[in-house]
Amino acid sequence: MVWGGDINPEERVVSVMVGRFSLVAGPASSELGLRIAEAMGLRALGLQHKTFPDGESYFRFLEKPDSTVVLVQGTHPPQDKHLLQLLLMSMGLRELGASRIVALVPYLAYARQDKAFLEGETVSLKVILHLMKSSGIDELVTVNPHAPWALRESGVVSHSISVAKTLASNVKRRGWHVSYVVSPGKKGMELAVEASLVLGAEPVKAESWRDPNTGEVRVEVEDGQRFSNKGVMVIDDVVSSGGTMSKLVKKLKSAKASRVYACCIHGLFIGGSDQRILEAGADAILATNTVPNKYAEVDISAEVADFLATLIS
Amino acid sequence: MVWGGDINPEERVVSVMVGRFSLVAGPASSELGLRIAEAMGLRALGLQHKTFPDGESYFRFLEKPDSTVVLVQGTHPPQDKHLLQLLLMSMGLRELGASRIVALVPYLAYARQDKAFLEGETVSLKVILHLMKSSGIDELVTVNPHAPWALRESGVVSHSISVAKTLASNVKRRGWHVSYVVSPGKKGMELAVEASLVLGAEPVKAESWRDPNTGEVRVEVEDGQRFSNKGVMVIDDVVSSGGTMSKLVKKLKSAKASRVYACCIHGLFIGGSDQRILEAGADAILATNTVPNKYAEVDISAEVADFLATLIS
Repeated sequence: MVWGGDINPEERVVSVMVGRFSLVAGPASSELGLRIAEAMGLRALGLQHKTFPDGESYFRFLEKPDSTVVLVQGTHPPQDKHLLQLLLMSMGLRELGASRIVALVPYLAYARQDKAFLEGETVSLKVILHLMKSSGIDELVTVNPHAPWALRESGVVSHSISVAKTLASNVKRRGWHVSYVVSPGKKGMELAVEASLVLGAEPVKAESWRDPNTGEVRVEVEDGQRFSNKGVMVIDDVVSSGGTMSKLVKKLKSAKASRVYACCIHGLFIGGSDQRILEAGADAILATNTVPNKYAEVDISAEVADFLATLIS
Repeated sequence: MVWGGDINPEERVVSVMVGRFSLVAGPASSELGLRIAEAMGLRALGLQHKTFPDGESYFRFLEKPDSTVVLVQGTHPPQDKHLLQLLLMSMGLRELGASRIVALVPYLAYARQDKAFLEGETVSLKVILHLMKSSGIDELVTVNPHAPWALRESGVVSHSISVAKTLASNVKRRGWHVSYVVSPGKKGMELAVEASLVLGAEPVKAESWRDPNTGEVRVEVEDGQRFSNKGVMVIDDVVSSGGTMSKLVKKLKSAKASRVYACCIHGLFIGGSDQRILEAGADAILATNTVPNKYAEVDISAEVADFLATLIS
């Protein structure tokens, strides 16, 4: 059912497919949403979206949604705007009769504060998940979240997908020769192992510390001389201000690695941090399209579509 | 109870008072919040707030709140950020034991979309109020909202205060001679009458229309010749892109008004619209401190404190 009404041609119309299930591609993830819809063969759902001059978001659904809706909307920066758009769309869909909403949030904001590290801290992840649930989201699907285990404590049924293998496959297809996959942080080894399996490379854990006062990042990789004359893939879940990634690239280049590929799932690249990474000596930067940016050349839509299909069918 | 932990000196600490009741001054309204606390004689509640480089908000309450908390946080632009901060703080306070949260939201965002004007539209006001309620806000107090009647339909107990008289008193105190108070739009007459009572002036309604396609504003004031050689106060609830206000000022100046004072409750002044209003011929711009800006010289804290005192005592 399509209803009438004039649409100002200046207002951006995001049109998606409609079927037994509907898919809505929110403004934060319109391109990825369309790709997923195509991969899933879903019916089109027309959505009109605009931002008023004062900054408020406006949504109008041009058709009645099916009872099950897949709502695709990332919460990369500007996080608060994208998050509120997600909540507005979800409640709008509920109001129009949707009875089950599966939110695909490729990048999940506010996930790092997953507990009170100090007394009195507001646990933002808990707040975000609560808001999603209370605005009618039944199930959350997200990609490589900061702490998958922390999602389980909310009342929202949640699923996380790791796309490290898809990223590594893309590296392989480009003919980039990789002997080692280096990854920083606690969860790093998981990502490094996943990528290494695809590339037939050796996974290496890098230690990283952030000085709590200065914010300065230090990184350390054991047995540096093995990288000499070798191709190295560095993989991280998020590149934000790029401190860890650029330090690691520099260290590997100093260790005479022949090629260093700076890869991440979610590329936020705050404040021109991509330039910092290139200046540190990276031969290339590569990211997935969970967050729109100029390095987002690894398309995860097929993988996500497969997962969503098993979930909603 | 104050708890320990190091605070990075770069992180902004907003400190407020504490008593039988606590008051929290959120980052969007820290100055107004402090004034209200002072006027109410409330106990101080320490709040640490920062924004991470990627744009996410962080909150830590440095003390345990009393069971009743007044939470002061406007939702002027950037609306989504300020709104999310409100929800984060409210849930944080609940988690720390607050059992009754009264939110003073001086400027209420997303209030214009108070119903579905066209089929399929998301009613943003309803979403916003629902999110407030679900994040633990029991009562909402706001100042000159777009449509006071629309607030009543949410599950949140809500109160609206009109500060038009306070604004007019300030005009009077400045010795600005005003014969007419002109106000545009449907609710205009209420504001004009309130201000006129204080100033001993005559209220005048102005008609205004916005072309739905071009966004162009047209205004009309009856019997223009009466303004010749007279002082005129123009009053509006919100000045956003300033289209209506600048058109009205121009019209009154063309009608040979000797002085035109452009006054508003909430001054958003999007995209340098204050300059447009001055270029249209306004002799002064004056706003209340519901929204921080350089024209916000009318302090409403005493009035709001009186109202809050009757509510929570």
